[in-house]
Amino acid sequence: MRISLFHGSGGKQTRKLIEEVFLKHFKQSGPLEDAAYLTVPSRQIAATTDSFVINPLFFPGGDIGKLSICGTVNDLVVSGAEPLYITAGFVIEEGFSIDNLNKIAQSMAEEAEKNRIKIVAGDTKVVERGKADGVYINTAGIGTVKRRFSVEDVHPGDAVIITGPIGEHGLCVLIEREQLEVESPVKSDCESLYPLISPLFEIPQVKWMRDPTRGGLATVCLELCEDTGLGMVLFEEKIPVREEVQFLCEMLGFDPLYLANEGRALIVASKEKADEVVELLRKHPSGKKAGVIGHITDEFRGVKLITEIKGERFLDYFEEDPLPRIC
Amino acid sequence: MRISLFHGSGGKQTRKLIEEVFLKHFKQSGPLEDAAYLTVPSRQIAATTDSFVINPLFFPGGDIGKLSICGTVNDLVVSGAEPLYITAGFVIEEGFSIDNLNKIAQSMAEEAEKNRIKIVAGDTKVVERGKADGVYINTAGIGTVKRRFSVEDVHPGDAVIITGPIGEHGLCVLIEREQLEVESPVKSDCESLYPLISPLFEIPQVKWMRDPTRGGLATVCLELCEDTGLGMVLFEEKIPVREEVQFLCEMLGFDPLYLANEGRALIVASKEKADEVVELLRKHPSGKKAGVIGHITDEFRGVKLITEIKGERFLDYFEEDPLPRIC
Repeated sequence: MRISLFHGSGGKQTRKLIEEVFLKHFKQSGPLEDAAYLTVPSRQIAATTDSFVINPLFFPGGDIGKLSICGTVNDLVVSGAEPLYITAGFVIEEGFSIDNLNKIAQSMAEEAEKNRIKIVAGDTKVVERGKADGVYINTAGIGTVKRRFSVEDVHPGDAVIITGPIGEHGLCVLIEREQLEVESPVKSDCESLYPLISPLFEIPQVKWMRDPTRGGLATVCLELCEDTGLGMVLFEEKIPVREEVQFLCEMLGFDPLYLANEGRALIVASKEKADEVVELLRKHPSGKKAGVIGHITDEFRGVKLITEIKGERFLDYFEEDPLPRIC
Repeated sequence: MRISLFHGSGGKQTRKLIEEVFLKHFKQSGPLEDAAYLTVPSRQIAATTDSFVINPLFFPGGDIGKLSICGTVNDLVVSGAEPLYITAGFVIEEGFSIDNLNKIAQSMAEEAEKNRIKIVAGDTKVVERGKADGVYINTAGIGTVKRRFSVEDVHPGDAVIITGPIGEHGLCVLIEREQLEVESPVKSDCESLYPLISPLFEIPQVKWMRDPTRGGLATVCLELCEDTGLGMVLFEEKIPVREEVQFLCEMLGFDPLYLANEGRALIVASKEKADEVVELLRKHPSGKKAGVIGHITDEFRGVKLITEIKGERFLDYFEEDPLPRIC
């Protein structure tokens, strides 16, 4: 069975599709209404949105459905919020397989359930063949604020911490898209950060965090420096990169610093508290490779990388191949 | 200037686009963050989402930008909520005109400002030429609940009210898309319903409402009957349709009952209070043509239309041309 324009008409077929695909999988959250009545634990909430246009839709370690939940969850988490509710909007291309739509909806439901998040409202649109690429998903998330992070709390001397090895999501998607034959397959790190990160909300010396998705670790570091007017020193040898990722990056000509991650966070914490933060992260299976990778400085602006051979280079925003549709 | 894949890379170009287009227009709402910290007036909130894939992007009475605000605002309003915050996700086709993107962002900003709503979070993705159609927008809305409506409060004898003439948005878009030459141009009714509808939140005898968008008035009535297990009688002569809309529908073979509206609401209220509700609606410029168009019954299920020549026919869900991409 395939999606037809009738499924987007707003009539009987739309209702049937919603019931037989979305309501079936999202059952944990009751009827998928146009607007949902929700209760939040406090009047301080966080809201976020993300659109997902990833190609291919299915990849080792996840699919667009799982990604559409994790991506929005993680934006809330690095903002110090506990994710509670998600809305989902689908733009589907005429001819798309309903089996695949079912798989995607199931992934969303599973990831939401695992994180105790409710998918509370949805919307389905269908566009003509050749006016989309399978399916695009937009999710918006609502969370309750546990901690407010601000770049204003970032100061010279603060430690820069990464929660795990970088570059896996981006590399995995590029390999899958180009159908490259590789010996050691790379799996996306696509994962909800809430279980790993939420214990840090209790630590006042944790000052700021961000998930390095599109543009990778380098871009997030550059943006932080731009927003603070400060500089950052990163030690290449301290940045965790899995062996197979390093190998394939060298072979294919990618820099893991610029590849997207979907289950990592960059954290700024006071120098004194940094080791304790790393220890806490390492207690969680997803934080085993967490570590301090650098520090904030006011001696210069921008991001200086100390290379493994003790050379220095300043990082810049990515200017080459734009690596489209990585999320 | 046109959109390139670099604008979606997550790097410098993405940041520049966001600053120069979205932040410029959405300035009333401060920085367009990945996640925004918000305060809501109570712990009872309503959330909704809608994707907009309308073709063409610009039409008499509005554009995809205005529509993306009104559509989400109206879903909140008919749920008894006061709209407060909106998130916006953009999927843009490579090659799309940045001038047009500016116009769309400006429309969004204007409509949001008019309604005192803040656009608080955003996301921008770019897909290759031929993988979208200009731009698709998803908005999600958060409101504070003023009244909770439920189909369970709908009972036999209740009056069915429409707030204004039907079919204008759908017809206008179809004319514009097909570039039909018509003597009296039809303007979309695209409009925020909050100013018109919010006074009704105070009236306990107003029991339920819905905005008849895709699928038109007929589909909303059919869905209400399905959800309640009740029937509805509609009087064709009482349903307001502008003369030029009626004329063009007859000429082009459309039924205004099935055409989308983007600034109308269908309201169910107790019989005793119906005239007062209509009077209240007529005080507002957008409610001048409001009127009772039928009633709820338990004598049969489904929607029975009493035609102008006193014939009867049961309405059914639209089964013909799906009229794609009307919103």
